[in-house]
Parts: sequence; structure tokens; C-alpha cells
Amino acid sequence: MSTRMVEVRAKVLKQNDLLARALRERFERSGTCVVGLVSSPGSGKTALLEKLLSGLAGDYRVAALVGDLATENDAARLKRATPNVRQITTGTICHLDAQMIERALESFGPASFGPDSRGSDSRGAESRGFDEMDFLFIENVGNLVCPSSYDLGEELRLVLLSATEGEDKPLKYPTIFNSSDVAIITKMDLADAAEFDVAAARRNIESVRPGMRVFEVSAKTGLGMEEVFDFLHSKAAGSRRTRVEATV
Amino acid sequence: MSTRMVEVRAKVLKQNDLLARALRERFERSGTCVVGLVSSPGSGKTALLEKLLSGLAGDYRVAALVGDLATENDAARLKRATPNVRQITTGTICHLDAQMIERALESFGPASFGPDSRGSDSRGAESRGFDEMDFLFIENVGNLVCPSSYDLGEELRLVLLSATEGEDKPLKYPTIFNSSDVAIITKMDLADAAEFDVAAARRNIESVRPGMRVFEVSAKTGLGMEEVFDFLHSKAAGSRRTRVEATV
Repeated sequence: MSTRMVEVRAKVLKQNDLLARALRERFERSGTCVVGLVSSPGSGKTALLEKLLSGLAGDYRVAALVGDLATENDAARLKRATPNVRQITTGTICHLDAQMIERALESFGPASFGPDSRGSDSRGAESRGFDEMDFLFIENVGNLVCPSSYDLGEELRLVLLSATEGEDKPLKYPTIFNSSDVAIITKMDLADAAEFDVAAARRNIESVRPGMRVFEVSAKTGLGMEEVFDFLHSKAAGSRRTRVEATV
Repeated sequence: MSTRMVEVRAKVLKQNDLLARALRERFERSGTCVVGLVSSPGSGKTALLEKLLSGLAGDYRVAALVGDLATENDAARLKRATPNVRQITTGTICHLDAQMIERALESFGPASFGPDSRGSDSRGAESRGFDEMDFLFIENVGNLVCPSSYDLGEELRLVLLSATEGEDKPLKYPTIFNSSDVAIITKMDLADAAEFDVAAARRNIESVRPGMRVFEVSAKTGLGMEEVFDFLHSKAAGSRRTRVEATV
């Protein structure tokens, strides 16, 4: 990369970090637990997200932003679980950035931070401001490299690794594992067919990011999903406490 | 992306295009068939390349450059097939560029374009100038987005799509399919287990890039590999003709 390119990129990343910080403060004020999903193309982000939205929608107000270079396929698919889904189409850009998130949030309608706007009677309405959400999921463009540089203001970033991709991905793409909080090994129903060595994958994750929490799931069969839901319930309780503290 | 970033990127891409053109002329002079491989992380580029190098090494002088953010694992693996392998470690950069290729070629030793340097007696030597090669494969960083913008001077670019990634990848990542010449659907041994709809995948490729040639393979079982080899034999014959024309 040229020196000029490095300089301009550093400036862009700094601006992104400032905007992401402002987003994070907004999410904290509204008590919204914001969860980012990153992975290779085809690791099963959308399949997992569909299960998460369906499973959480009974107890929480949930929403999702989904990034892709082209097509609105993912948003159409996720709308089976909740109407609160917006597609972000990036064109040729290989990652989401904080500004894209800020703009997409506006499409959910007006944000208001007063406790009155959060009455339980507003549950079930078709479209609402993001600040009324308990969970906001952000599915990034499928890319194990570039999204790692762009903070989106998430509370939690999940990196997905599918059993069919091989055990070595954490070693080859260490930055995305380092910028994530939790690893989820997906497509575990295909692990045997793909001769996937889950112990080796866990060792590789541990060597890149010691102590990282790892879940093993199959969105198709439901394997391991209960543990992920338990984890998200505990996160939602934490975000709710933040909101109460902010409003009293 | 900021306007400044777009401007700087356009300049970088222009410089890359100039350098790639010079590389392409070099490869034509030396009669080397240069084949790029692009795909998501974990689509099986290295497994396919290992089979290609092993299968071609008996009849041709073959070499490979492999790009990764970190680790030399792929080069170590490919050296089982040929010693003429160089790893390009990109750090945080999400793609190979023409300058990285130019530098890596220097590591193969001095280039010389005289017909004397191509005597059949030089076959089997451990390390040789790239200009003595019949085939040079370039395995890009696993990324379905960014490598599409960077010409590496290849004669032929193969885009891989694994049966476990889903049928919709060509629609979601159209640019990489448009910048490639041939699509290879890999891991076909897992197609049934993954409920992969190969006809739908072919339709999606056709809609993004009409007339694109598509191979279906399994590097593991050998399924479909014979057709890929036939295709590469015909390409090598074409490159050899170019070389003869250039030297007489």
C-alpha cells in the first residue's frame, strides 16, 4: 500500500472510531444490546441470524441490519422472523462502517430517549425507532479481513467460522478474531463429512485470542443453539441494567 | 468512503494496472501461463492448487505464489508438490497487488529471456527464474471482494465457490465473478450433505457472467479434475505458441 493510501486510511479509520463511539453511547442510553456478526462469505451468518431473531422475538424487541455488496436477499429472508430488518447495500465496498449504520438507523424512524417512549404497549408495532429495541444485530459483508478495522459501535462482535472452512482460519485471519469477542463454529452438522477437527480449531482460536469464548452450533439442526440463547439472555439483562441506570 | 479515499484509491488502482500490464507482457514473452485463484477463505484454493501442481509437475515446470495475511502454512503444504513455491504474507492487507507479485518473482532468481535458458536440461532443478516456468499459479488472500480490483497480470483468473457456501454467492459478490474467467465449484463431495443446488448455482453464475465456463470438482475425491487438467493443457499449448512467436 502506498504511503498516501496508508495516511488517508488512517484518517478514515479515526473518523470511523469517533462515530462508532457516539453510536455506542446511543446504544447504551437506549439499553439496546447491539451484536455484530462477521465471517467469510457462506459461513452461515444469515442462517444463524434467522434462528436468533425467531428465537428472541417472543421475549424481546429485535431488529437487524444486513450488509451485502448486492441483492436484498438476506433482508427478505430475515423478514420472516421480524419486520425490523434493513438491508445495507454497499456496492463495491468490502465492509460496513459506522456511517452506514448511523444512516440505516434513521430508516427505523425517529429516535427518542425518554422513558415514555419505551412503554410495553409499543411492542408488536411494525416499525419503530431503533432506540426501542432490546437487540440490534448487524450482519457484516462476508469478509474475514476488512471488517476487522471498522468499529460499528457494537457491544459484542461474534466471529463465525464454519466447520467446512477448515481449522486454520484463526491462524490465517488473526485480526478478525482479535477484534471479535466470541467465536461461533457453525455448520457442525457437516463436521464429520468435512473431517473437521474441532479440537484443533479450538486450539487455533485459543492461540490467537486466549480465553475467547467458543460456541459450536448448527443452525440447521438446532445443535448448541440453547447455549447461545442463554448467553444472549444474560447480555440483554446487562444492557437493560445500563438503560435503567441511565434513565433514573 | 470519503472522496479523498476514493481519489487515492483510484490512483493506486491505476498504478497497479500499469504494473500488471508490464507483468503480463513479461509472462507472454516467457510463455508462462499465469493462473490466479480467488475465493472466500476456506473454499479449498490450497487443496485444489496442491492437486493441480502435483498433476502438472510431471509434464510442465510449475511454480506457485500464495498470499495470506499470516502464516506460511500454505507454502509448506504446496512444497510437497513442487519446491517452486513462495509465500507472500500481506499482514493486514486484504488482497495481493501487482507489486507484491513482482517482488515475489525476484525471489525465484534472475530472469532471462533468451531461448538458451529454456533448455530441457534445466528441468528438475530446485529453484529457477520464473521465466523458465510453464505455469505460475497465484493463490490470492481468501476474500471475495477486494482482490477483484487488483489485476495481477494473470492470463486466467479462476474464482472458486465451494458447495458448502451456498448457491447465492455469485449474486452477492458479482464483481469477483466479473473479474474472473472461469468458475470452479469445489467440495462437490459435500454437495449432498450441504443440500447444495448446483443447478441454481450455475444459473446464478450465468446471470452474473453470461457464458462463463464452470467446472464442478472435488479435490478430495478427484471428481471432475480431469476436465480441469484438459483445460489447463490447452492453455499451456496456447502460452507456448506465444513464446515461440516471441523468440523466433
